[in-house]
Amino acid sequence: GDPPYMMQFSVLTKGATLRIDLDDFKKKVSDCKVVIINSPSNPTGRIESLQTLKEIEKLAEYMGFYIISDEVYKDLIYERENYIIKGPRVITVNSFSKTFAMCGFRVGYLWSRDQQFVDKVIEMKTHTSMNTSILSQEMAFEATKVPRSFIDDQLNIWKERRDIIYDGLIELGFELWKPEGAFYVLPKLTNPKPFVWNLFKKHKVITYPGDWFGVDDRIRLSYALSKEKIKRGLEIIGDFIKN
Amino acid sequence: GDPPYMMQFSVLTKGATLRIDLDDFKKKVSDCKVVIINSPSNPTGRIESLQTLKEIEKLAEYMGFYIISDEVYKDLIYERENYIIKGPRVITVNSFSKTFAMCGFRVGYLWSRDQQFVDKVIEMKTHTSMNTSILSQEMAFEATKVPRSFIDDQLNIWKERRDIIYDGLIELGFELWKPEGAFYVLPKLTNPKPFVWNLFKKHKVITYPGDWFGVDDRIRLSYALSKEKIKRGLEIIGDFIKN
Repeated sequence: GDPPYMMQFSVLTKGATLRIDLDDFKKKVSDCKVVIINSPSNPTGRIESLQTLKEIEKLAEYMGFYIISDEVYKDLIYERENYIIKGPRVITVNSFSKTFAMCGFRVGYLWSRDQQFVDKVIEMKTHTSMNTSILSQEMAFEATKVPRSFIDDQLNIWKERRDIIYDGLIELGFELWKPEGAFYVLPKLTNPKPFVWNLFKKHKVITYPGDWFGVDDRIRLSYALSKEKIKRGLEIIGDFIKN
Repeated sequence: GDPPYMMQFSVLTKGATLRIDLDDFKKKVSDCKVVIINSPSNPTGRIESLQTLKEIEKLAEYMGFYIISDEVYKDLIYERENYIIKGPRVITVNSFSKTFAMCGFRVGYLWSRDQQFVDKVIEMKTHTSMNTSILSQEMAFEATKVPRSFIDDQLNIWKERRDIIYDGLIELGFELWKPEGAFYVLPKLTNPKPFVWNLFKKHKVITYPGDWFGVDDRIRLSYALSKEKIKRGLEIIGDFIKN
């Protein structure tokens, strides 16, 4: 039979970078059957270095773990091209949700060189949710025909949004990293819970407490919104902090 | 903690009626935590009597099992109104697929008086496939506004199809029941496997071997097709049998 698949979700070091520290990583994954890598990352907005990703590929071979590489933000990188993690023990997970702003339509895919694994996934999917909505599949198929320039244009829009939220939060005095990918910022904040709750209840601005993602002194903001809404949100947060 | 949920799928008696025999049922479910009832039934096309369904409701209370009542064919009954199985241990499963011919769009629902169970289902759904396609949800919402007369008109179409396939198969010499619901017939056939395979490979007519459903001397045919296609299929089967 197959081994039970164990997953260890968070290999984040809570240090300065919120990137993978390879020594720390090796220790944490030593008992793992499967490791999930998510670069660009939700919630950090960081990307792992090419060196780190290639080292993790080698470790998978050497240490014998599988990698589920969640690359759903592959087309939302502001710094470089996406690096696709490769290897016989790699399962790449992807989606039409982010690249084509199709998240409501629930179309994703995975691929792997491990045919036995793929067969099992098909079997599971068939016996749980069966097919994906035929209309969503048609939409995804049409999306595959879109020229690369469309994706590049989208990236410029994302970059503008990133700059607005990053500059705005810096101006408000927050400490945060400038995202290199995805569409989240993760500013520092002492005691985030009442902040998140009151901001939502009183002012309808939604943020997430960082402890949902393993860091308890930060909040997560998404900038998957129009420039106008991001600016309005920043204004409201500014007023909220003053009072 | 919660008990493990065990399911016993087939409570069919392989006797003359392909309906539930209550004495047999009581024996078979004595160790079950959950029993799935599917009336109208895929693949038999039969409906259980009101008396049987009400007795099963009582048995659920008395014997302490849960009922998952799969009533997806509730609007495709030719004999009477659907009877909704009721009770504190009942989970009713339904769908927009059959009533509104929306099967490609993957919208269904369940309801139960057991709030704890419902909460767990929501949790599972959220962490596996998240939301259902928003377009499919909109379509389903619009479908709820359709007047009852639309469903009645559909039922007349289904009835016509049923009569064509039933009469046609009887004429070809098959032994089968006249379906009371759903859109399947289950005629008797010795050694169904080569029949099913050759009919598909040589003549592109799809039937299913009965052993997929627990009866090895029958085949299942669907009449979820236009009248013309049903007639053409019957012609091909007729020619196929002669040669």
